[in-house]
Amino acid sequence: MRIAVCQSNPIIGDIKGNAEKILAGYKKGVEEKADLVVFPELFLCGYPPLDLVEKKEFRDAVNNSAQQIAAQTNHVGLIFGTITEDYEDKIGTGVYNSAALCYDGKIQFIQSKTLIPNYDVFDEVRYFESAKEISIHEFKGEKLGISVCEDIWNDADYWKKRLYPVDPVQKQTELGATLLINISASPYAYGKRRERLKMLSVLTKNDKLPLAYVCCIGAQTELIFDGGSMCFNPKGELCLLGKAFEEDFFIFDTRHEYKKIESVEDSFEAEVLNALIKGLKDYARKTGFKKALIGLSGGIDSALVTYIAVQAFGKENVHVILMPSKYSSVGSIKDSEKLIETLGISSDIISIQNVVDSALEELKPAFGGKEEDVTEENLQSRVRGLYLMSLANKHGYLLCTTGNKSEIATGYATLYGDMCGAVAVIGDIYKTQVYNICDYINREQEILPQQIIDKAPSAELRPNQKDQDSLPLYDLLDRILKMYLEEQKEFNEISSVIMEPEVVKKVLRLVDLNEFKRKQAAPILRVSTKAFGYGRRFPIVQRWRT
Amino acid sequence: MRIAVCQSNPIIGDIKGNAEKILAGYKKGVEEKADLVVFPELFLCGYPPLDLVEKKEFRDAVNNSAQQIAAQTNHVGLIFGTITEDYEDKIGTGVYNSAALCYDGKIQFIQSKTLIPNYDVFDEVRYFESAKEISIHEFKGEKLGISVCEDIWNDADYWKKRLYPVDPVQKQTELGATLLINISASPYAYGKRRERLKMLSVLTKNDKLPLAYVCCIGAQTELIFDGGSMCFNPKGELCLLGKAFEEDFFIFDTRHEYKKIESVEDSFEAEVLNALIKGLKDYARKTGFKKALIGLSGGIDSALVTYIAVQAFGKENVHVILMPSKYSSVGSIKDSEKLIETLGISSDIISIQNVVDSALEELKPAFGGKEEDVTEENLQSRVRGLYLMSLANKHGYLLCTTGNKSEIATGYATLYGDMCGAVAVIGDIYKTQVYNICDYINREQEILPQQIIDKAPSAELRPNQKDQDSLPLYDLLDRILKMYLEEQKEFNEISSVIMEPEVVKKVLRLVDLNEFKRKQAAPILRVSTKAFGYGRRFPIVQRWRT
Repeated sequence: MRIAVCQSNPIIGDIKGNAEKILAGYKKGVEEKADLVVFPELFLCGYPPLDLVEKKEFRDAVNNSAQQIAAQTNHVGLIFGTITEDYEDKIGTGVYNSAALCYDGKIQFIQSKTLIPNYDVFDEVRYFESAKEISIHEFKGEKLGISVCEDIWNDADYWKKRLYPVDPVQKQTELGATLLINISASPYAYGKRRERLKMLSVLTKNDKLPLAYVCCIGAQTELIFDGGSMCFNPKGELCLLGKAFEEDFFIFDTRHEYKKIESVEDSFEAEVLNALIKGLKDYARKTGFKKALIGLSGGIDSALVTYIAVQAFGKENVHVILMPSKYSSVGSIKDSEKLIETLGISSDIISIQNVVDSALEELKPAFGGKEEDVTEENLQSRVRGLYLMSLANKHGYLLCTTGNKSEIATGYATLYGDMCGAVAVIGDIYKTQVYNICDYINREQEILPQQIIDKAPSAELRPNQKDQDSLPLYDLLDRILKMYLEEQKEFNEISSVIMEPEVVKKVLRLVDLNEFKRKQAAPILRVSTKAFGYGRRFPIVQRWRT
Repeated sequence: MRIAVCQSNPIIGDIKGNAEKILAGYKKGVEEKADLVVFPELFLCGYPPLDLVEKKEFRDAVNNSAQQIAAQTNHVGLIFGTITEDYEDKIGTGVYNSAALCYDGKIQFIQSKTLIPNYDVFDEVRYFESAKEISIHEFKGEKLGISVCEDIWNDADYWKKRLYPVDPVQKQTELGATLLINISASPYAYGKRRERLKMLSVLTKNDKLPLAYVCCIGAQTELIFDGGSMCFNPKGELCLLGKAFEEDFFIFDTRHEYKKIESVEDSFEAEVLNALIKGLKDYARKTGFKKALIGLSGGIDSALVTYIAVQAFGKENVHVILMPSKYSSVGSIKDSEKLIETLGISSDIISIQNVVDSALEELKPAFGGKEEDVTEENLQSRVRGLYLMSLANKHGYLLCTTGNKSEIATGYATLYGDMCGAVAVIGDIYKTQVYNICDYINREQEILPQQIIDKAPSAELRPNQKDQDSLPLYDLLDRILKMYLEEQKEFNEISSVIMEPEVVKKVLRLVDLNEFKRKQAAPILRVSTKAFGYGRRFPIVQRWRT
C-alpha cells in the first residue's frame, strides 16, 4: 500500500484553512498515486482546541467541514483527525477525538481514541470520551488498524508501569490488522523523538506489522509540535522519517525495501534552537505579527532571544531597544551595539534615568523615608517594561521576553518589568543551556559577541550587582531545578544527591513562592518534558514548604 | 447517631496545621458526646492540592500525618479527607482521593472517591484513580455509606443527562446503608447552594436515608468554598445548615426531630459580597499580607474594591493612592476624597503627569512622529501600575486589582497597567452587577459616594473619554457576555436572542482576542459558574472567530 504522509501545520480554530490543507494534501496524494492519504490528530480543528470543544457551534462547524471534505474523495482513502459526537449518548460528553477514514464520497469508518491522556499539558478527559469500540477496517486488501496518538503508547512489552489497562493497538493486532496507522499530535520535548523511535520499533517488531505514524508540526501558543513522522517495516526498522520542525509530505510504500534509519535527533543545541525558532515564528504568523521587539540588556539572554527572533522574522523585521541607566556598564552598551551590527538589525537607545528619577521624586513622600531596597530595582525594570510596551503598541511589534528557565523558576525577574511581553522565547531553557546554545551558534564564527557570553551575569539594577549575589552558582542551581521540575524529585531525594540541603531548601522554596509571578508570565515555548505553563499546575496560595 | 460536622478552613500544603485542626475538632466532638466527627474532602492536604499530589514526598507526608491522627482516636469515629495510595497498583497513578474513617487508634475503613470530576476548575483525573470498590461500613449500629463530593452528584432521578455511568451512593443504598455521609469541597458560585439543597433533598427523600453533607469553607487562591454544610432527615428535609463563608461546628443527631429549613441562600448582592470579602481575606491571611493597597480612580470599580478591602483587612490596614493626570476630572478627585473620609482609610495623592510627560519626551524619537493612539493611553495606565507596585514593594501591601468581568472579558484594561496586582477582587462580577452590589452597600446609608455610582464610566485616559465610546452599553454587553461565558452559548444562539448580530460578533471577537491579556492577569476570585482563570481554558493563538 502507498501511504501519503501529510505532516502539516494546522491553525487552531481555522477550520476552513485546515480543510483546505487536507484537500490540497489529498490532491497531491492522488497525483502521486497514493492508496491512502493521512493527516495528523484533530487536524481539522487544530490541536489542542481546548474549551473550543465545549462549544456546540464549533463542533458542528468541524463536523460539517468533515462531511464536505469526505464528499470530495474518490477511491483513494483519506484519514484525518476530527471531532465526532454521539448525540444519543446520555452519559458523559458524548464527544470523541477521532480518526475519520473517507473514500468514495463519504466517511466510511471512524476509529475514535481509546486512551485519553490527562497529564502534564494534556486535558483530554475534560472533553473526550473513550472510544466505545476498537476495530479494524478492510481497505484495498489491507486490514487497517487505525489509532489516535496515545492509543499506541500503552504497549505492555515496552512499559514497566502503564497508565491504562487497555492496549488498543494490541487489540487491533489480535483482530488481524495487517497495517497500523497512528495519527498523532505529540508536543516536542528534547529526547522524545528518540523515545518514539525506541517504543515504536519494539512495537512493530513484536507485532510484525508495518506502521505509519503521522505527526503534527507547528507551534500552538506554547506547545511546539516537531513533526518527525515515522514509518516502520514489520522488522521494527525505521524506513522513513519526516522533517523536524517543517511541514513534510512523502509516500510510504509498504512493499518497498527501505534502508534502515538509525538517527532521529540532532544535538540538544541544534534541536532546541530550531524548536524555538519555529515556536516564535508560528506564534507571530498565526497571530499576524510581522515584526519583533526585544529589550537588549547587554546580557546573554536577550542576545540569544534577538538571534532567535532574527531567524524567525528576518533581520529587517527585528528591532531592539537599549535602555541604559546609571548602573549600566559601558561594556553592556558596547556589546549590544556590536550584536546589533553583526545581526544587521535596527535599534533605539533610550535612557531610563530621567523617567526613573522623575518617578522616584514623585514617590518619595509616599516612601516615607524608607531605605532603598528591591523597590528601586524593580522600578528600573518596570520603566524598561513601559518603554518596550509603548514601542510595541505604537509600531505593532511582538514583544519577546528574555527570561530563562532558571530565572523564571526562582523569581529572579520583575513582574511587569522584564517579564513584559507576548511570548517567553527561552523560558524553558536553563541558564547553563543558554550558554551551550550560544556556544553552538558561535561554533563556526563569532555571531554573538564573546564578551556577552563571557561576562558574569548581572541584572545591573544596583552598583556591581551580580546574579550570584542572590542565587547559587548556575551550575548548581540548574542541577537542582532539573531534578525538582523535570524529574519530579523532592527535597530529600535531591538533598541526597546535592549534598547542600540548605541550598536545596532555598531553591525549592524560591520556586514555590514565585508561583504568583509565573501566573502572570507570558506563555513559555515548551521544549522540555516539564515546562512552566499549562503543563505544571501548582497552587499559588499554599504552605507545603513555607 | 450524633455526628459532629466540622466545617473548617484548611490551608493547602499545611499538613501540620490542618492535622491540628482535625485533632482540635475531634477533641471538641468527643467533649460534645459525638459518635462520629467529620471533616471535608482532602482536608488534611487542603483542596485543591493540584500538582503537589504528584510529589511522592508530599503524599508520604500526608499519609504519615493521617496515621498519626488515627493513632490518637478513641472509640469515637473520625472521618476526614486524605490522599491514599495503592503501591501494588501497576496501572495508572495508584493514588486516591479518599475518606478515612478512624477509631480505636487506627484507620479502620477507607472509601475512595469513585466519580473523579474533570471539568471546569476540576482536574482530578490528572491525579486520582477511581475507587476500586464501593462499600459500606458498620459502626455503632449504623451502616455508614461514606462518599466523597462528586460521588453524590450522579443521581439518576435528578439529572436528565449524567456525567458518569456509576452511582456510588445508589450502590451504598442497595448495600443497606442506614446513614449517608458525604465529605465535600465544592467551590462556590451563586445559586449553587440552592441546587445542592434541591438535589440532596430529592436524593435523601427517595433513598429514605439521613445524610450529613460536610463542606469545606475558605478561599484557596481563586476558589472560594462557602461552607453551608447540610444535614437531611430521611424525608428529604433540611435539618441543619452550616454558616456561609465562616467556619462552623455543630452536632447532627439523627434521632432528633428538627424544624425544616427552607432557605439556604441570601440575595445575590449579599452572598457575593460576603464571598469576595472572604476570598480576599483568605488570600491575604494565607500568604501573610496584613495590608491592602488600591489605586482609586474615582470610578465605581475601585470604590467597591476598596470597600471590600476595608471589610477584609480593617480600615486601618487599607491604603489607597489617587494618581491624577491632566485628563482626570475634578469630580474624580473629590469623589475619591469623600470615599476615603467615609471609609476612614489612609491615602496618598501622586500625580502621574510629570512621569508621563518625561516618558513621552524620551520615547518621542522612537515613536517616529506617529499620531497619538492607544499607546499614550496605555502609558498613563502603566505609570499608575508602576506607582502601585512601587508602594506595594516598599511597604509590603497586597495590591488589589480593580477590573470587573465585563472589562476583563473585552480586554478593556491595560496589561501591566491597571491589571497590575496580586488578586482581581471583582474580576468575576459584571459591570451591571457592580452597580447592584454598590446599591446594596448603600441600602441604608450612603457609604459609597452616590456621585461615583451615578457618573458615566470612564477610563479618563483621553479628553471626555467614556467606556461606551468603545463598548456597547453595559446592560447589553453583560447580557451577551453572560450567555457566551456562563451559559456556553455561541454566536448563532446569542444572536437569536440579542437581535444585533454585529454587536454580538464584536463582543465575542473581543473576548476571544483578549485571551492573551487574561493569561497574564492576576487570579480572579470566582463567584460564578464560569469565571476567567483556572476553569476556562481557551487557546491564545487561534482563529475560530478571527
